[in-house]
Amino acid sequence: MKKRLDLESLREGVLSGSRVLLSQAITLVESALESDQKLAAELVQSLMAHTGKSIRIGITGVPGVGKSTFIEAFGMLLLRQGKKVAVLTIDPSSQLSKGSILGDKTRMERLAADKQAFIRPSPSGTTLGGVSGKTREAMLLCEAAGFDVVLVETVGVGQSETAVKNMVDYFLLLMLAGAGDELQGIKRGIMEMADALVIHKADGENLDEAKKAKANYQNALHLFPASQKDWTPRIALASSMTGSGLEEVWEQVLLYEAKMKGNGFWESNRAAQRLSWLDEQIQFLLGQAFSKDPRVSQSLEEYVEKIRSGALNPGTLAKKLVSLFLSKRSPR
Amino acid sequence: MKKRLDLESLREGVLSGSRVLLSQAITLVESALESDQKLAAELVQSLMAHTGKSIRIGITGVPGVGKSTFIEAFGMLLLRQGKKVAVLTIDPSSQLSKGSILGDKTRMERLAADKQAFIRPSPSGTTLGGVSGKTREAMLLCEAAGFDVVLVETVGVGQSETAVKNMVDYFLLLMLAGAGDELQGIKRGIMEMADALVIHKADGENLDEAKKAKANYQNALHLFPASQKDWTPRIALASSMTGSGLEEVWEQVLLYEAKMKGNGFWESNRAAQRLSWLDEQIQFLLGQAFSKDPRVSQSLEEYVEKIRSGALNPGTLAKKLVSLFLSKRSPR
Repeated sequence: MKKRLDLESLREGVLSGSRVLLSQAITLVESALESDQKLAAELVQSLMAHTGKSIRIGITGVPGVGKSTFIEAFGMLLLRQGKKVAVLTIDPSSQLSKGSILGDKTRMERLAADKQAFIRPSPSGTTLGGVSGKTREAMLLCEAAGFDVVLVETVGVGQSETAVKNMVDYFLLLMLAGAGDELQGIKRGIMEMADALVIHKADGENLDEAKKAKANYQNALHLFPASQKDWTPRIALASSMTGSGLEEVWEQVLLYEAKMKGNGFWESNRAAQRLSWLDEQIQFLLGQAFSKDPRVSQSLEEYVEKIRSGALNPGTLAKKLVSLFLSKRSPR
Repeated sequence: MKKRLDLESLREGVLSGSRVLLSQAITLVESALESDQKLAAELVQSLMAHTGKSIRIGITGVPGVGKSTFIEAFGMLLLRQGKKVAVLTIDPSSQLSKGSILGDKTRMERLAADKQAFIRPSPSGTTLGGVSGKTREAMLLCEAAGFDVVLVETVGVGQSETAVKNMVDYFLLLMLAGAGDELQGIKRGIMEMADALVIHKADGENLDEAKKAKANYQNALHLFPASQKDWTPRIALASSMTGSGLEEVWEQVLLYEAKMKGNGFWESNRAAQRLSWLDEQIQFLLGQAFSKDPRVSQSLEEYVEKIRSGALNPGTLAKKLVSLFLSKRSPR
């Protein structure tokens, strides 16, 4: 009975746009407690009809590119345009870098102080499968709470860009002009995922370099195969310090939205993302149940050295462990 | 009793280096029949002590780079040096491109005709997790049959490069000089995985271009962060038509082997690969059992439209399906 009440008050709180209750709801989603998870699932499900109405924007870039300052300046612009803005961070390594996350919060102070904005760092100490599932549910809750734009920031560690690309409508890559080829190399794989490149810190002495970089990227992008959605990544110069270019970045988002809603890609992309989310979560939950099984872990511990040394065929052990796992009823 | 006999004769046949029995053994490994799989697992396990002694080389490159001609010419060189050479292909899409696989076999005619060589295309119509597990076991069987060098070719589709990188000692990327930036873009992500770049078709009119390309790549590679194993990817020019450069490619492999065996990376890398193989196969088998479960597929079919439309939370359905799957004894 208490649970029902809690569910109802959380639900009402989120729908009313309360940042405090939205925050509590996300904490519930992130909780590892079985009872919390059950309630969280009910909560999210009860809000599904109120989700999906925001523009979901993924933002990435190498460390030092100024993601936090960009998000704050871009978010402030959106607030001035009357939008409600939520910022989520996805960072599977956040357990190791708590400092930087606190830093992020400090750096986005202006945005965090505005009642029309909501900032939430990544749950710490979770694997990517866990983080991305929870971030997706947090995104749905933000939408139910009436946020018009959800910015999902990735710190660019490991596979997190792919995870973010897979949960947003629009993927924005922040770059710096004049960064060495080493950086370019890192970004190349990501460039193909981007809907927009923003050359950041394009101000003062950097401006000329930035203009040159824009021309270069423009040329490079022409060589990419045309995407099925019929969109060539836009390139903009922007400065979070002077604010220049931020409006153009937003206009490109709106242009993209209009075009993709027109040609049907917007909705088909979201449908595909929901299916891949399902798939990903199934894999994650199966893997989790598997590694929690005491018989599996005992057997694994017994044989792992033989795997390492090559005495035991990994294929054989995999089969044995999976059979063991599936041969008994799960404890619950 | 019959099975035991079969196991024994297969085992002896593989150990004696019989290509016919090696071929049968690999067919057994690739079989989807449960009884075959059981026998295959016994067979591979019984041969583990005889595995691990080859040099495992992965070879990739975009279509048109001349992988088959390179492998044939390189393989013939190794045969002349008294090595036994096995060629395996990994191609999760092979069901769709049977033509090209037959083509490969035809193109490697000289190599295939030699008794010291063994060529085996990828099992067709299998998912990557299935293919890579089977290719790994085929590789072990080739080693037990006394092959000194195993060349694993990837057709460069999807995640297959990563799968191959993860099962070989040495990863070789074939490139063409003067290919447009578009191709470079595709290769960039792979370049970081490569232990060697071979600029192929470096002959006749292409030679000057190839030399220039080598200098360019050399510069680019210097910008990459040094790898933990202390090895800068080597770049060689090679022509399968004239044979030039192939010896250099092989010398680089031997240099790598000596260095990595000296610093311990060779064995630690293989140990890590065996563990990740175990992990991958567990995921694959769990996923397979899951999708074969009739209650799961029925429930999935019932709800998939609601997932697609966003009416149902994918996280909730994932939980429901996984609970359903784990709540009953598996059929076997």
